[in-house]
Amino acid sequence: MKLGVCYYPEHWPRERWVQDAQAMQKIGIEYVRIGEFSWSTIEAEPEVFNWRWLDESLAVLHEHGLKVILGTPTATPPKWLVDKHPSMLAKDEQGRVRGFGSRRHYTFASLEYREECRRMVTMMAERYGQHPAIVSWQTDNEFGCHDTILSYGDADLRAFRFWLAEKYQNIDALNKAWGNVFWSMDYRSFDEVELPNLTVTEANPSHRLDFQRCCSDQVVAYNRLQVDILRQYASGRDLVHNYMGFFTAFDHHKVGEDLDVASWDTYPLGFLDQEDIYTATEKHEYLRTGHPDFGAFHHDLYRGCGKGRLWIMEQQPGPVNWAPHNPSPADGAVRLWTWEAFSHGAEMVSYFRWRQAPFAQEQMHAGLLRPNGEYAEAAAEAEQVATEVKRLASELGVDVDALVSLPSAGSVALMFDYDACWSLDIQPQSKAYRYLFWCYRMYEALRELGLSVDIISSKAEFDHYQMLVLPAQSYVSPELTSRLESYKGVLLVGPRSGSKTESYQIPENLPPGPLAKLLPLTVERVDALPEHMPLHVNGLWGEGMLKHWHEQFKTELPVLLQDSTGDPVLVGSGQRYYLGSCVDNKVLKASLSRLAEKANLAPYFLPKGIRIRQRGDLIFAFNYSSIPQIFRPTKALPLIGGAKLASCGVAVWKKEQEKNKK
Amino acid sequence: MKLGVCYYPEHWPRERWVQDAQAMQKIGIEYVRIGEFSWSTIEAEPEVFNWRWLDESLAVLHEHGLKVILGTPTATPPKWLVDKHPSMLAKDEQGRVRGFGSRRHYTFASLEYREECRRMVTMMAERYGQHPAIVSWQTDNEFGCHDTILSYGDADLRAFRFWLAEKYQNIDALNKAWGNVFWSMDYRSFDEVELPNLTVTEANPSHRLDFQRCCSDQVVAYNRLQVDILRQYASGRDLVHNYMGFFTAFDHHKVGEDLDVASWDTYPLGFLDQEDIYTATEKHEYLRTGHPDFGAFHHDLYRGCGKGRLWIMEQQPGPVNWAPHNPSPADGAVRLWTWEAFSHGAEMVSYFRWRQAPFAQEQMHAGLLRPNGEYAEAAAEAEQVATEVKRLASELGVDVDALVSLPSAGSVALMFDYDACWSLDIQPQSKAYRYLFWCYRMYEALRELGLSVDIISSKAEFDHYQMLVLPAQSYVSPELTSRLESYKGVLLVGPRSGSKTESYQIPENLPPGPLAKLLPLTVERVDALPEHMPLHVNGLWGEGMLKHWHEQFKTELPVLLQDSTGDPVLVGSGQRYYLGSCVDNKVLKASLSRLAEKANLAPYFLPKGIRIRQRGDLIFAFNYSSIPQIFRPTKALPLIGGAKLASCGVAVWKKEQEKNKK
Amino acid sequence: MKLGVCYYPEHWPRERWVQDAQAMQKIGIEYVRIGEFSWSTIEAEPEVFNWRWLDESLAVLHEHGLKVILGTPTATPPKWLVDKHPSMLAKDEQGRVRGFGSRRHYTFASLEYREECRRMVTMMAERYGQHPAIVSWQTDNEFGCHDTILSYGDADLRAFRFWLAEKYQNIDALNKAWGNVFWSMDYRSFDEVELPNLTVTEANPSHRLDFQRCCSDQVVAYNRLQVDILRQYASGRDLVHNYMGFFTAFDHHKVGEDLDVASWDTYPLGFLDQEDIYTATEKHEYLRTGHPDFGAFHHDLYRGCGKGRLWIMEQQPGPVNWAPHNPSPADGAVRLWTWEAFSHGAEMVSYFRWRQAPFAQEQMHAGLLRPNGEYAEAAAEAEQVATEVKRLASELGVDVDALVSLPSAGSVALMFDYDACWSLDIQPQSKAYRYLFWCYRMYEALRELGLSVDIISSKAEFDHYQMLVLPAQSYVSPELTSRLESYKGVLLVGPRSGSKTESYQIPENLPPGPLAKLLPLTVERVDALPEHMPLHVNGLWGEGMLKHWHEQFKTELPVLLQDSTGDPVLVGSGQRYYLGSCVDNKVLKASLSRLAEKANLAPYFLPKGIRIRQRGDLIFAFNYSSIPQIFRPTKALPLIGGAKLASCGVAVWKKEQEKNKK
Repeated sequence: MKLGVCYYPEHWPRERWVQDAQAMQKIGIEYVRIGEFSWSTIEAEPEVFNWRWLDESLAVLHEHGLKVILGTPTATPPKWLVDKHPSMLAKDEQGRVRGFGSRRHYTFASLEYREECRRMVTMMAERYGQHPAIVSWQTDNEFGCHDTILSYGDADLRAFRFWLAEKYQNIDALNKAWGNVFWSMDYRSFDEVELPNLTVTEANPSHRLDFQRCCSDQVVAYNRLQVDILRQYASGRDLVHNYMGFFTAFDHHKVGEDLDVASWDTYPLGFLDQEDIYTATEKHEYLRTGHPDFGAFHHDLYRGCGKGRLWIMEQQPGPVNWAPHNPSPADGAVRLWTWEAFSHGAEMVSYFRWRQAPFAQEQMHAGLLRPNGEYAEAAAEAEQVATEVKRLASELGVDVDALVSLPSAGSVALMFDYDACWSLDIQPQSKAYRYLFWCYRMYEALRELGLSVDIISSKAEFDHYQMLVLPAQSYVSPELTSRLESYKGVLLVGPRSGSKTESYQIPENLPPGPLAKLLPLTVERVDALPEHMPLHVNGLWGEGMLKHWHEQFKTELPVLLQDSTGDPVLVGSGQRYYLGSCVDNKVLKASLSRLAEKANLAPYFLPKGIRIRQRGDLIFAFNYSSIPQIFRPTKALPLIGGAKLASCGVAVWKKEQEKNKK
Repeated sequence: MKLGVCYYPEHWPRERWVQDAQAMQKIGIEYVRIGEFSWSTIEAEPEVFNWRWLDESLAVLHEHGLKVILGTPTATPPKWLVDKHPSMLAKDEQGRVRGFGSRRHYTFASLEYREECRRMVTMMAERYGQHPAIVSWQTDNEFGCHDTILSYGDADLRAFRFWLAEKYQNIDALNKAWGNVFWSMDYRSFDEVELPNLTVTEANPSHRLDFQRCCSDQVVAYNRLQVDILRQYASGRDLVHNYMGFFTAFDHHKVGEDLDVASWDTYPLGFLDQEDIYTATEKHEYLRTGHPDFGAFHHDLYRGCGKGRLWIMEQQPGPVNWAPHNPSPADGAVRLWTWEAFSHGAEMVSYFRWRQAPFAQEQMHAGLLRPNGEYAEAAAEAEQVATEVKRLASELGVDVDALVSLPSAGSVALMFDYDACWSLDIQPQSKAYRYLFWCYRMYEALRELGLSVDIISSKAEFDHYQMLVLPAQSYVSPELTSRLESYKGVLLVGPRSGSKTESYQIPENLPPGPLAKLLPLTVERVDALPEHMPLHVNGLWGEGMLKHWHEQFKTELPVLLQDSTGDPVLVGSGQRYYLGSCVDNKVLKASLSRLAEKANLAPYFLPKGIRIRQRGDLIFAFNYSSIPQIFRPTKALPLIGGAKLASCGVAVWKKEQEKNKK
Repeated sequence: MKLGVCYYPEHWPRERWVQDAQAMQKIGIEYVRIGEFSWSTIEAEPEVFNWRWLDESLAVLHEHGLKVILGTPTATPPKWLVDKHPSMLAKDEQGRVRGFGSRRHYTFASLEYREECRRMVTMMAERYGQHPAIVSWQTDNEFGCHDTILSYGDADLRAFRFWLAEKYQNIDALNKAWGNVFWSMDYRSFDEVELPNLTVTEANPSHRLDFQRCCSDQVVAYNRLQVDILRQYASGRDLVHNYMGFFTAFDHHKVGEDLDVASWDTYPLGFLDQEDIYTATEKHEYLRTGHPDFGAFHHDLYRGCGKGRLWIMEQQPGPVNWAPHNPSPADGAVRLWTWEAFSHGAEMVSYFRWRQAPFAQEQMHAGLLRPNGEYAEAAAEAEQVATEVKRLASELGVDVDALVSLPSAGSVALMFDYDACWSLDIQPQSKAYRYLFWCYRMYEALRELGLSVDIISSKAEFDHYQMLVLPAQSYVSPELTSRLESYKGVLLVGPRSGSKTESYQIPENLPPGPLAKLLPLTVERVDALPEHMPLHVNGLWGEGMLKHWHEQFKTELPVLLQDSTGDPVLVGSGQRYYLGSCVDNKVLKASLSRLAEKANLAPYFLPKGIRIRQRGDLIFAFNYSSIPQIFRPTKALPLIGGAKLASCGVAVWKKEQEKNKK
């Protein structure tokens, strides 16, 4: 449970560096990320290098005991480099070149640009690979930001054809997999395949899905190129990338396999304001704290991508500049967010940024310091956290460094699969359906029941979880099918699961395809509804509404919930259940609490805005609402805070019971 | 009153064909449309033909007594052909090429592509022109689908300049007709004229109108090219094209002149969800049946385009995939739609599609069979209709085949003119004004009064109708003026009629231009209102609201309705009436019922959601509402169903009176 | 107080010209603007000139005593000219060429097109510079209409690089000013700089601001080129350009410096319907009169741009054609608008257009005559105004011509700065924030208090005003700072003032930057709020709500209004006040009335929809509401109308008091 900060020595006069380092130390900051946008400072002219500012700033930070995460500066290649390789620029879906003048002006598929990255990263890694200040390297910055995963230029087309040829080997296999006979879309060779943009009407969904997969694989390859160099020169250092919120355009599990830690950039207010996932009521209610599950969802998701290791690389410290509206956080919100991250296993929370820059695009983005160098509001909250962490260690009788190794796993697993996300969003049938939204709402319901959730990939082990939820696993591989068949915990399978083959076709036996053995039922028809037509759901397990997606399926399984015509909505018995509709929060909580009880978990209906998380013996409690609330866990002693949680309040409890037993 | 289905033998293993044909027979299907997307199966490589699958599938269908409608496959040219003629691709209004990867990737104006079509259609027609299974040929598929009428490429520019030169002969005539002096837009030659897209602000409306006319004429020429070949080789077969719902971008009357039958593709739920014409209330209320006038309006419109002959080429049988939301139809809706079509004179209703394809773009589009080959919900409803048709024939004591020749004409004519549509929508003055919407609402009001309506072109005879409605005939030709002047029935002329010359200028005597002799009045000013400002209408004939379009005109004619300032809204006497505003349903029904009475028709205010239609002695009644309702015609005997109509209920009655008299 | 009209002799047969001139005389019209779209009539072929129509129409007008404003026809170059110089066309932000076919098809930066303008204007000026009928020349027409200030073509890029080189001299200065180090955006030379469009995410705001300034300067240069020629040949004539409503994309103050008079084109109904500035309630309430401050705001703004001289070049006379909805004006509205203009110092009000054209884009745009040549509604209202003006002169015992020289200055100055507008709108922080909207709402509040306002540039003198309002002066130059420091009147500084340097950076001492000496406070943080989250404001000076922009600042100044957390919103004492939030109309009126009292003005809370304006002894009163209202100034005698103002009513009063004193 360490604090960090993002710092740009190249923006400030050298005379200030020592003062900054001292102030970081004073606040309790131990980690500093630098360098990730500095290419033009390092190499202002081709092959003319200026390392001095970096040598010296590293020295200053090191002298003050600060540990550095060094970013490769490949998200912002300089103008001269772009002019040298104009083909490295991405093209948008409309065919327009996305030019120089901001950042991320490259396509992952450009081999020319990959060579330039190899050159720069090698230079940096040779020079700083074993620098004593540096404990970690960040590859590039926020892959995909500003919608940069899908690109429609020549480099992308070349990469796609190559990727297809690798996958299908012969063009007839592709034609068959995509069902190209449908509209005479058959190709005679891979060289005839085009990108799926600017077609007269929608391109074949199989075509679109394969293109998304290909683009995702370009990110994996691009990242691996940097990783391979860094492994060679910077051994012993943690390799990391900083992911983003609500971003699904590449497979983070695959990128994560090549790295040591997953980190992400968390902006609770910016995302609340910006994202369609939130209702108008939520946007109003949580304006100054962010939605109670925003941070948690991503912490649990990315911890999974990081094979258990999680950092927060950028934590919002005040108003940002990039959302449609940029309000100030509530007093205490920065502390709340930081503790929430720790409760989900974050080893480190780093604020973005140290000092608000008075120039360029982000000049209205707050930092721990104001543009004039004085402390901004968040500095005190960060300092408070640093103090509290020490207190917590002392209460627990352990060294502060030991806190990192507290257990972080949950008892319920929710499967999140990037391939399923792409597949289902390509054809939502009801405009409002989004895979991510549905997963988020399932997660929210679990968390409102006080459960600690792990979000896992479709490749991850799940045997040890007491309960497993598949929100919408569209393609279920034979390997996954077999693991599910032998799973002993309580399993809930959600709508659209098993609805597609790997090639995006409807399975021969109809959905849920390979899951039909496990859950004997057949989805015969889908009633895809507009927002204005929710349907009533009721039955043994409760009542409420269903929205957007409603499967009409036949089954002999016991019916636990049904629609108003008597058609089944939730069925199952023993350890295995199938939910055929997107149901509302009320139904979700009622159903999931039943299932959690079957799994011997202890679901608890938390007060509005209150969330908890467990790490071993510790229970963390948080109040995201704007009024004080009470939460007191049974048989537990408060270490920080207590039962009464003010708005933005945080409490940490230790279970008595466990203590007694051990 | 026959049933048909759309079938794609090329999608399924040959072993299945016989089973499919048998199942069709069993349901009562007699017609099968095939072939319209099969170019790449026929000619996978240039000039290498595979006719075998088509020979054999025709043979199977023929053996089972099924009659085939064979589609020319020109809506989906294969990739190699597009690569050979890249200039055949359309360009959208933004200048982007609309590429390969879905369907309809060509512009009608491409002479290269027309040559390819000539080649393919000739090959097919030579081979199958006299095939005993084939009773009809469909040209291409859904002209204009995916907004493909207007194209802005080089081929289109060339065609437009040629078209203009033909029409105007010399450039001064064009300059004068368009009023190009207005903003120094004069041209010195036809080669200076550009397409009306990407101008700094809106192009000259005369320019836009002529471009629309030219593009429409390209469709006519494209269709005629195929027709000419088919007439040569496939004599005795009905030539047909399948039109679409709410689609006005080309002149269907002109295309229809070259064909034997008009058909259209009816998707009541998809269009309800998708189209702006419907209010939020309507979208909610008729979610599972479609709007009560959707089918009827198009049946009557296209029967007019088909010179009295109408088929339904594609009838929605379940949820579709292409609307923003795709709900399931109500139980009975497929039967309801089928009978509604028959009541409007459809000779044949063909479901789209036989079996839901498990692959490609439309994999979520239901068929009569599910993807796994089992019957879907609609199969039973189709079978029920087939049985009921037989029963009806038997009740009437005629052969089933004789039902086709029942009279289908209505007693009221409503004029629908594609040229008027283009003209008025180019400058709506009030954003919400749409010609089509206004015609539809007039039609709806007539039909809610129980009247049977024919929708006729501006060239059609109308002397024999008791009542004639011109919703908004912007340009009234001398020929039409003279026919209107000698018309003896009750005439209602709606707002914007006579408001433009052929060249899109305001007539010298102001609107209604040439109609001023018939209806002595002068439109002095137009009050084009936003949605939030409807005005009250009242007077001798009722009261209600007017919206969007409100003409301020002076006249000596008796005032039947006026606005709140006393200005006239509806005027006239004897047989001739003028309505100057877009009025609401309440006013429309009140006024049209008065006029119908004057025309010796018997208007009847039907219950909400109930619609009726007459064919000679027969009265068909339909319940589109979600509750049971009562409708009992006077002096009539029920043949199918009765007075109590459940939701989706259908009844057929025979007039007693007529029986007695004859 | 003269009337004029816009006339297009080239649209009508020559036989009609005399009749038109006579009718103009009869109505009381004295000024006629002609020629501004006539290039293709003058020069139908390159270098082949037809001056005859212009010679003769000038002669006709002159013979009837009409004074001509001749427009240079450069807003509509003919097709042949565009074909000769394709590079003269603008490109939109998406990179698409904006082609021929309407008007304004050129970019201001095109040197080729400037040469063509020089040629044409010289020809015209040589011929007509000293023509006795001509009293004024209008340059081009509506600079910037149809979003034509920013253009992204090669000519624009060349001009921008040149402009930057001029401004910064060396590239390091530019890099520093823009803060290009931020994302490695540094350039090595001016030739590396690109236009700020089609970047991956937003371009640097400094980059964007400089581009906007450069484009504005192109307009200045383009206009000056014409002015220089006209000064040479047409000495003694007023040079004028016609500006537009709610249009801020170039610096009108700078263009105005080169001209003699400012004029603008006022369409109260079109702008009400079209502009986001107005609420749904306002759009409904003022549908037929326009918003009560629309005309006034622009009159006061452009009188400032015209160095005290103001004309209305185009006054809406009936429904227009270009707004989403185009309703008819209320009876009396045209008279109301005309008198409102006179009350703000307009020397002349010219109606657009004389006769409604029956052809081309604006055929639905009303004129004083209908398309058939008969009088439209507005003709009588214009005639009434002409009569009333004579009566007013007679009541005042002066010659009609003397009315022009009545004083027109107000007592309160509101600073409006185009550079501030661009700067603040580039980064609004809260989507709904717009500089123009905020200035308009401040102006509205002042005017609802019965105050007469001058809208001044940041360069204008303000010492003589009793009160000065800076709504949001983002960059405050040293020169302005010093003048503000020595200002003796009551000063109100609004939110975001002093928030940026000239280069768009945050000032070193934080906002309000250089104003901190005058108003000792520091803006520490900005709470940029969505529409759904207004905050309550209360305190000594009243209560109400704040919206969108809320500064959190620290100060020792007395707090007059605060938010619900006690943070200051309005502070100050004596003559100097700072407002840190965008507050609602209620708070604005309460605060501004207090300040006006301190400034020894006599604020008066007018009835809803009533507005007044003073010119010396005269008080003009107007009723924009739809119901009759009472307004009686103290100690004044009615000259026209009286205390009871019908809807659209106008009254002119003369102060008694003043009379007695003199």
